[in-house]
Amino acid sequence: MIIILKRDADPAKVETLSKFLQEQGLIIQDIKGENTHMIGLAGDTSHLSREQIEANDFVESVKKISEPYKLAGRKFHPEDTIVDVGGHKIGGGNFAVIAGPCSVESEEQILSIARDVAASGAAFLRGGAFKPRSSPYAFQGMGLDGLELLKIARQKTGLPIVTEILNPVHLEAFARDVDVIQIGARNMQNFSLLREVGALKKPVLLKRGLCATIEETLMAAEYLMASGAKDIVICERGIRTYETATRNTLDLSAVPVIKSKSHLPVVVDPSHGTGYWHLVEPMALGAVAVGADGLIIEVHNAPQYALCDGAQSITPEVFHRLMKRIAKVHAAVNEG
Amino acid sequence: MIIILKRDADPAKVETLSKFLQEQGLIIQDIKGENTHMIGLAGDTSHLSREQIEANDFVESVKKISEPYKLAGRKFHPEDTIVDVGGHKIGGGNFAVIAGPCSVESEEQILSIARDVAASGAAFLRGGAFKPRSSPYAFQGMGLDGLELLKIARQKTGLPIVTEILNPVHLEAFARDVDVIQIGARNMQNFSLLREVGALKKPVLLKRGLCATIEETLMAAEYLMASGAKDIVICERGIRTYETATRNTLDLSAVPVIKSKSHLPVVVDPSHGTGYWHLVEPMALGAVAVGADGLIIEVHNAPQYALCDGAQSITPEVFHRLMKRIAKVHAAVNEG
Amino acid sequence: MIIILKRDADPAKVETLSKFLQEQGLIIQDIKGENTHMIGLAGDTSHLSREQIEANDFVESVKKISEPYKLAGRKFHPEDTIVDVGGHKIGGGNFAVIAGPCSVESEEQILSIARDVAASGAAFLRGGAFKPRSSPYAFQGMGLDGLELLKIARQKTGLPIVTEILNPVHLEAFARDVDVIQIGARNMQNFSLLREVGALKKPVLLKRGLCATIEETLMAAEYLMASGAKDIVICERGIRTYETATRNTLDLSAVPVIKSKSHLPVVVDPSHGTGYWHLVEPMALGAVAVGADGLIIEVHNAPQYALCDGAQSITPEVFHRLMKRIAKVHAAVNEG
Amino acid sequence: MIIILKRDADPAKVETLSKFLQEQGLIIQDIKGENTHMIGLAGDTSHLSREQIEANDFVESVKKISEPYKLAGRKFHPEDTIVDVGGHKIGGGNFAVIAGPCSVESEEQILSIARDVAASGAAFLRGGAFKPRSSPYAFQGMGLDGLELLKIARQKTGLPIVTEILNPVHLEAFARDVDVIQIGARNMQNFSLLREVGALKKPVLLKRGLCATIEETLMAAEYLMASGAKDIVICERGIRTYETATRNTLDLSAVPVIKSKSHLPVVVDPSHGTGYWHLVEPMALGAVAVGADGLIIEVHNAPQYALCDGAQSITPEVFHRLMKRIAKVHAAVNEG
Repeated sequence: MIIILKRDADPAKVETLSKFLQEQGLIIQDIKGENTHMIGLAGDTSHLSREQIEANDFVESVKKISEPYKLAGRKFHPEDTIVDVGGHKIGGGNFAVIAGPCSVESEEQILSIARDVAASGAAFLRGGAFKPRSSPYAFQGMGLDGLELLKIARQKTGLPIVTEILNPVHLEAFARDVDVIQIGARNMQNFSLLREVGALKKPVLLKRGLCATIEETLMAAEYLMASGAKDIVICERGIRTYETATRNTLDLSAVPVIKSKSHLPVVVDPSHGTGYWHLVEPMALGAVAVGADGLIIEVHNAPQYALCDGAQSITPEVFHRLMKRIAKVHAAVNEG
Repeated sequence: MIIILKRDADPAKVETLSKFLQEQGLIIQDIKGENTHMIGLAGDTSHLSREQIEANDFVESVKKISEPYKLAGRKFHPEDTIVDVGGHKIGGGNFAVIAGPCSVESEEQILSIARDVAASGAAFLRGGAFKPRSSPYAFQGMGLDGLELLKIARQKTGLPIVTEILNPVHLEAFARDVDVIQIGARNMQNFSLLREVGALKKPVLLKRGLCATIEETLMAAEYLMASGAKDIVICERGIRTYETATRNTLDLSAVPVIKSKSHLPVVVDPSHGTGYWHLVEPMALGAVAVGADGLIIEVHNAPQYALCDGAQSITPEVFHRLMKRIAKVHAAVNEG
Repeated sequence: MIIILKRDADPAKVETLSKFLQEQGLIIQDIKGENTHMIGLAGDTSHLSREQIEANDFVESVKKISEPYKLAGRKFHPEDTIVDVGGHKIGGGNFAVIAGPCSVESEEQILSIARDVAASGAAFLRGGAFKPRSSPYAFQGMGLDGLELLKIARQKTGLPIVTEILNPVHLEAFARDVDVIQIGARNMQNFSLLREVGALKKPVLLKRGLCATIEETLMAAEYLMASGAKDIVICERGIRTYETATRNTLDLSAVPVIKSKSHLPVVVDPSHGTGYWHLVEPMALGAVAVGADGLIIEVHNAPQYALCDGAQSITPEVFHRLMKRIAKVHAAVNEG
Repeated sequence: MIIILKRDADPAKVETLSKFLQEQGLIIQDIKGENTHMIGLAGDTSHLSREQIEANDFVESVKKISEPYKLAGRKFHPEDTIVDVGGHKIGGGNFAVIAGPCSVESEEQILSIARDVAASGAAFLRGGAFKPRSSPYAFQGMGLDGLELLKIARQKTGLPIVTEILNPVHLEAFARDVDVIQIGARNMQNFSLLREVGALKKPVLLKRGLCATIEETLMAAEYLMASGAKDIVICERGIRTYETATRNTLDLSAVPVIKSKSHLPVVVDPSHGTGYWHLVEPMALGAVAVGADGLIIEVHNAPQYALCDGAQSITPEVFHRLMKRIAKVHAAVNEG
């Protein structure tokens, strides 16, 4: 941490602050130039609040140097984490595709799609039982009945299930029935939910928030890990920008950035990331090329009748073709 | 709703879609030009999903025309809502200031600040018992003990209390003890929390999400209202932009925009909106001038020792002076 | 400047870099903790490129500490600059309103509006002769003929004229005929234009770019000043964000921030800043309350027939009423 | 174009507006529902200003339906444009890489890099002679001397040269000496420069502005084309967002979006798009996978001594390896 002082900072006040910091075990180093006076702090500053120090009227600004995450960071955990759900692996060189409908609508629908995506090579089945919708009047998901249908689909196809939790009241059901618990973008900073889900110690798919920085996303993973979870998959799903041609702006550069800073696997959601089915295919290939550990893709047998997100769902036929192209690009990126 | 068709749209498919829409009671109107073909829909389209229609491959895009909120909108509720908590009113010409520390730290602290802000003319006391912190290692608030201290402060000063709920497990305590339940920015789209808090039918302070649009903010209010709440105060607290000179970009234009679209009162938080105590005063006056119904301001007796948000807290002395200036600007804006 | 080194930085390479920096007259200070190694630089680092140092593979990142602007900054020029055009002053306590149509359309139009705004108390006349339009097919302004009409309006009303330059081919005409040369938002980083306009040593109205940071805006002022200009008025005109309810997001907090960092006067453009005439009035008052030195407002006698920007123009009647309200709020903000 | 009227719109005023629009040759269609009244316009609305219509107080809002660009759009020009500079082609299935240093620094430097990138398979040489720098004190490029060195490099390697124009005073030199004239991101809406460069009818590399929408980018291309240019290459180079882990957010989804709307080739700049050399390689591969027609990459023989943009430049060795990987991914994406 670096503290930049105002030009006319009262030396007595600076002295008081320095002593306070030294008492916390930090090493203080004064850096003085003609027009600048800074204090460099070495040691563990993770418990120190930038705001608290900036509240001193003789401080101009404070810059944090070291990363605030420890469990999620690569610094003390250099090797890649591999999330392994009954042999279905993501990370550390294992590429996996999670596919399925936006929401579970009926047994026939989920079974049909699950079989199709399994046949095309998907490793996990996604499907929403509880749906976060921006309108209270929109379809909110089938709830626990949807979870039951997912379990049937898992039994028939062998695909582990990934589904989103919205309310802590369902923690027990998710702990028992769900293979990978999804934290949605809108709940990425729902810290009490993060703590409670983390305490289940199950695999978690953590979606980046709508306007979360990469650092905030890793801090959300840190919450999960500080509560006990180990197997976290981070999902880039597009961020909010001024551009309106796409639903979100898919930030593919987040993949190599996160992988350089963290040992956790990173998957990409080109469906929410773009909002349009015809962009899913190119952006899925792009995600493979930038080094993602996997993809999560919305597939629906009849998108025009889907109860949600039809515009961004691809059909099983398109998915089948896409999986073949993904394999080719993945091979090209990773050979020699 | 307007459906823009692709140039080469298959007439048979368009016909099928038109029939489907007519069966839902909508009035269909074809608009054909040399190079464009659109379908205009009149009637109640609130249950119709843009995504579902865009999933048809002959549709270029869909534009929603009418506002998706009904209870929160001014269209069917033209008169201003006045939130009245034991005579402390916000909205409909009633201007109120909510003040207090970021978090409750001790009985002495909260009592001292509560007395100070009450003496300066604040109408409500704020103070966090449960704090959403981006780091799991940062101070998370005193919890239910903090709530008890807030109750003592209310008893001593007569100020109703405003505090944030994070976890539905505390709903009962909040229903019993809190006057105005705050939904924080990070939970603005925590739809299950919105529904549960709304069902309490208590006054709610709803903070705009970090990158929520005005429409999404009003839809969050709609969730609360659809569950039974009536007395909702919307809070502009800055949005996330590329600018780093301030913690957030305080969007004061949101005040007149929301007030034109909704009957709900709007307050402004210049503390979180800027992140720096020296910007609180000018932006508070700006909020008054653009027509806000109130302010929520962080006040701390010793900001440099505050357990959170010290950098954006003002002292009781500054607050006292600011309240006098607020009164003058409010009078100037609203006279003749 | 602070250089943060990678954990495994090769000491020999660090030594080489340190020597290179010392040879440039900088004072080097090593800051070493258990897990961090930083180099603090004191002295004049303005000629040092962050990118160049980050190109070293043993460097993790570089943080600039001191402000990159000198002439525009308040550090070495603490007193407010007052821009004075024939007694019409902006800055240092002088509040001024610049008003007029988006574009000059005819002698009758500009004369009528100029007389109206002068009568209501405007201190400067604005009007576009050369218009930057996003479509090549839209009205591009009357060009030099428009400049002639502005001169007539100045003669009849005594108001100095403010108008935008687009092409350096018109530098001579602007030097001769225009009182305050406007650099538009889209040209804020047209550095060759900045240098050429700066060399005229005339007053300049510099609009913040569509997504310019405050620092970049001050660096654009620095370009003008480094070429010889002294009298620069900075204009906040809204920035681009994800919000679509307004044309731009008017960043009123930029006013106190710029005024704390720079001695230059700051005016606000609520017309472009919002895009809607009914938001001009509240946001103009807000700008006064946050401490702006003036306003620039689009006024048109018949907005629905305006050749550009009709939606954000107010009528002379509304302007007249607004000027009275501005005076009241200005007095309330600045008294005692 | 769709005009949404206010609920209480005066029928007489609506009638007047409708007549005015009909007189302009537009077909008017009324769409009335219980709570909505819209007017649909069919015909050529490109000369109609949204703002002008919104200036009517009985109009709630106006939505443009058809794309404002004609020459740049795919609607009337379905086949891909191929830009061909002496056999070096971009677009329509031709993939090309433009490579070279940020700025020309010396004959030795540019010749060495040009030879290296040519040997690795680059099709064009980039190099800045005139540099847009955010600080007036930073290196501004070698100017016309730099242009001479680029010509020598072209002669020695056969690579056509791509370099940026900043000032119209150099139009003649660029027309004579430069193969592909670059319009930089900061000048994307410098409309007078666009018109003058367009009139040269030479190939242009048009960089997307720092916060330009895709539509605005295509409108900038429209400016060039309306002035006579035909061979325009659009360059995605990252947009400004709130994320600070990268210099810009590279919007790879812009590639398939632009290619669906326009016939012009699209290249990607992963150097400016990320700001860090270690992200250039993955993002270059990602650009290939999403369907870009080419890349523009900064290559420097000694990045740590580069006079600009060292942090984002890769060495010739890395470039050589990258070119091989690009070829593999390109083949994988485009086969069968």
